[in-house]
Amino acid sequence: MNLAVLLQTNHHNANQDAEIQKRKKQRAKVCLSEETDTQSREKMNIPVLFSVLLVISTVQAFQYTELAQYVDSHEEDYVEALRDWVAIESDSSNVLKRPDLHRMMEVTALKLRLMGGAVELVDIGEQELPNGQTLALPKVVTAQFGNDSTKHTVCVYGHVDVQPAKLEDGWATEPYNLTDIRGNLYGRGASDNKAPVLAWIHAVEAYQALNMELPVNVKFVIEGMEETGSNGLDAMIVAQRDTFLSDVDYIIISDCGWLSRRPALTYGTRGNCYFYAEVGGPKQDLHSGVYGGAVIEPMTDLIGILDTLISPSGNILIPGIREAVAPLTDEEWKMYQDIQFDMDNYKNKIGVDQLMYSNKVDLLAHLWRYPTVTIHGIEGAFSDPGTKTVIPAKVTAKFSIRQVPNMEPAMVKKQVTDYLHSVFAKRKSPNKLKVTMVIGAKPWLVDTQHPLYEAGRAAVKRVFDMDPDLIREGGTIPIAKTFQDVTGKSIIMMPIGGFDDGLHSQNEKMSRYNYIEGTKLFIAYLNEVSKIKRTSV
Amino acid sequence: MNLAVLLQTNHHNANQDAEIQKRKKQRAKVCLSEETDTQSREKMNIPVLFSVLLVISTVQAFQYTELAQYVDSHEEDYVEALRDWVAIESDSSNVLKRPDLHRMMEVTALKLRLMGGAVELVDIGEQELPNGQTLALPKVVTAQFGNDSTKHTVCVYGHVDVQPAKLEDGWATEPYNLTDIRGNLYGRGASDNKAPVLAWIHAVEAYQALNMELPVNVKFVIEGMEETGSNGLDAMIVAQRDTFLSDVDYIIISDCGWLSRRPALTYGTRGNCYFYAEVGGPKQDLHSGVYGGAVIEPMTDLIGILDTLISPSGNILIPGIREAVAPLTDEEWKMYQDIQFDMDNYKNKIGVDQLMYSNKVDLLAHLWRYPTVTIHGIEGAFSDPGTKTVIPAKVTAKFSIRQVPNMEPAMVKKQVTDYLHSVFAKRKSPNKLKVTMVIGAKPWLVDTQHPLYEAGRAAVKRVFDMDPDLIREGGTIPIAKTFQDVTGKSIIMMPIGGFDDGLHSQNEKMSRYNYIEGTKLFIAYLNEVSKIKRTSV
Repeated sequence: MNLAVLLQTNHHNANQDAEIQKRKKQRAKVCLSEETDTQSREKMNIPVLFSVLLVISTVQAFQYTELAQYVDSHEEDYVEALRDWVAIESDSSNVLKRPDLHRMMEVTALKLRLMGGAVELVDIGEQELPNGQTLALPKVVTAQFGNDSTKHTVCVYGHVDVQPAKLEDGWATEPYNLTDIRGNLYGRGASDNKAPVLAWIHAVEAYQALNMELPVNVKFVIEGMEETGSNGLDAMIVAQRDTFLSDVDYIIISDCGWLSRRPALTYGTRGNCYFYAEVGGPKQDLHSGVYGGAVIEPMTDLIGILDTLISPSGNILIPGIREAVAPLTDEEWKMYQDIQFDMDNYKNKIGVDQLMYSNKVDLLAHLWRYPTVTIHGIEGAFSDPGTKTVIPAKVTAKFSIRQVPNMEPAMVKKQVTDYLHSVFAKRKSPNKLKVTMVIGAKPWLVDTQHPLYEAGRAAVKRVFDMDPDLIREGGTIPIAKTFQDVTGKSIIMMPIGGFDDGLHSQNEKMSRYNYIEGTKLFIAYLNEVSKIKRTSV
Repeated sequence: MNLAVLLQTNHHNANQDAEIQKRKKQRAKVCLSEETDTQSREKMNIPVLFSVLLVISTVQAFQYTELAQYVDSHEEDYVEALRDWVAIESDSSNVLKRPDLHRMMEVTALKLRLMGGAVELVDIGEQELPNGQTLALPKVVTAQFGNDSTKHTVCVYGHVDVQPAKLEDGWATEPYNLTDIRGNLYGRGASDNKAPVLAWIHAVEAYQALNMELPVNVKFVIEGMEETGSNGLDAMIVAQRDTFLSDVDYIIISDCGWLSRRPALTYGTRGNCYFYAEVGGPKQDLHSGVYGGAVIEPMTDLIGILDTLISPSGNILIPGIREAVAPLTDEEWKMYQDIQFDMDNYKNKIGVDQLMYSNKVDLLAHLWRYPTVTIHGIEGAFSDPGTKTVIPAKVTAKFSIRQVPNMEPAMVKKQVTDYLHSVFAKRKSPNKLKVTMVIGAKPWLVDTQHPLYEAGRAAVKRVFDMDPDLIREGGTIPIAKTFQDVTGKSIIMMPIGGFDDGLHSQNEKMSRYNYIEGTKLFIAYLNEVSKIKRTSV
């Protein structure tokens, strides 16, 4: 440990850019000699170690400019790599697309293997479908680059599954055919989360291509069920805590976006409790003329109970939900107050005249640290264009609650289920209600003063020449909380997605700018992390 | 006119079955001689007319047994004809299926033309879509068999368009591949309305095949927009009132079903006011994590206003709707009371434990002569399997009101639109509500003592050896009211569909029994109608 600290303090100071420029040519030569050094290092004995380390510490002086140039010169390769990945319809919510999802995991594993990583495709078992059937979960890809115990080890988490997308949903381009329009790369999963995962891979690849040693050991955990709640991953993390994850110091997640054009670091996310409320009655759909008036219609019942979830002014009506929420502190209020956030710009982006709250602090607070209810849609009713005169026999509403500290998913499940059954009972309907919580992803929150975040600030400063916003995320990265609880390691969320990338909606995109500069950010961040003192872990 | 009456009173009495049997062989010979008579008739001059008519009147003695045998021996041909028609996906509500619908009209026209009918494909113009685009309406097929001014002329109305259907909706078999399971022919449109239309065509064909003169002139009006409100047909009927329809005495519609296993005659239908309620907000779908809490969600607004349409106990909450309904008379009450109707059987068929009303009269009254509201579904929200975490940007509810005498569609449109806008206004939402009535089909009601219904009773008696139920129909045959208002002619609804045919729902079917015996019923009915005295028209 002490040796490692010594090594790191000998590292070149990342901010001494002038010095870097001066030593440029010298380094190119050293790099060549380093190759030999690296190859022979395993055979070294202890007496020669110290002097060699001093040499390496000089060799490893961070060559950001070369790395950044390398990235710039490979932009088209990176875009093509993203095109190949977007073309795979790895929709984890649609069981019919499961073969594509399996293929996506294999493609990811292959890419990492070709880079010389130690790669595994970890079987995480099966998924139980609502109808009782089981389906193989996509394997989780783990990979390792570097195994130097004197270095820090980071574990990059990402996912390569995507939300559903169809051209008919209103996409301007084919969602699975990456389309470049004025520097924006449109495609499902482009920003969430395929480009960020590729950017991390390319960051490692850039070091390799320039024969530069990685400043830290880099591990990957890439999953394929994030969009539906990371089914199976929790158990895998628990199972690998003392093996694959045992030497991991820090966990990095880049599965979110900036708040504006300014880069951001994310220090919290909301959770997601996703519910199915199914109301079933007749044994099959009925003609609404022939049977209308005789039958107590499941759709009417479902609409009736859905209407009791949230008030027009955004108050959640389910007893106990809002009461559980941690109160807003003065510090938080001040922090939100200080954040650069243009309400008009935000409204324009969404295309609305009025938001639920008219001041910045209320709005940000309700995006980040208060829960909300969204009704996503109804399965089983008539949803196509045209005029079908049907009484649907069984209808299933999909709605979710973005929950926050200190709401517990298990408690939310009980509160929602009990409440819906109680309002349903008042209808005295003979139909059957079934409430299921199909996702119960926890919220996550960390201290922004942690060295991981200091390192993040430094990396953003180097690449973008500005300070990052410190933000929370309204969305959910289900696994963050699990990583934290199981490994006890610190986590940073370092987004590279744009604020207007349209995650989960039509015309999702990743800009070339964010993709390429994001790759550079990751390159710079690996260097910054290597400078964190062990004592502060 | 007097000559015609004389001719008809000379007709064989349909009930004298023994007499028919006795004359069987004799008739077979007369048929052969009739052929020659028919061919030479056009060249006859007035002096010889009377004696020839006497010969014809004997020739035309109704040969039901031969016709019924002909039908029985052609059952498989009829099933194949239905298979061909069901295979055409003539879904009038889906604009993408419009080419199939056009083909369906052409196939229908061709079939009638090959039988020697005077057939036209009448252009009825274009349809305006909600987005402002226009689309050619399917042509209406008119056909004429026989042009004998001494005979009555009936006009059979039917439609060959169908409701939407997909295997994924829960069909046990491919909906457009007619599948015979234990004598039931499963397929979309089998019962509604392709088999009944074919049965009418086959009825005419049977007379032709046996060289029997049709007892009445038979015209057809076959449309392709019934399932979406018979767009364009009203105008066509008005336009052809003094031409194609001018010599029509009676209109026959077979676009409904029996109430039980007993054949039925239908004397009323409900109307259908079909609405779209569209709520739009953000310019595109949004990630529910990223934006949930900030945005006033269109789906929440839509659920909120839909929940104000109808109470859990079936009361329509839209002011003015129920007040307009004609009060239940004592006669009606008694009539309903006398109808054979097995509540338990009905519940079993639907698969529910409890209906909206627990006694027969209330139930039938609310199926036939009281309005109801059905919410069919929501377009634009997430309706697929899986868990998409989306805030839909624009959602359109589809709901319909089955209206009854004395509700006027124009008034219903105003009542619904005003009401929804008023409840929406109370939400103070910045989203935009747009209410459109896309179908406004009127209800229809006639006197069951009319000779057309007497003839119907006689035909049912002959074919099924029982009296028919006299029923109303909860569904809508939009054009009945228009035919009545424009032509001033009497209408009968003579269903052959089974009570459990599953119209508009999964696994729609037509039984071979109803299809074949129904064809015989139509054959018998043409004969009964020919006996109606002119004075009672």
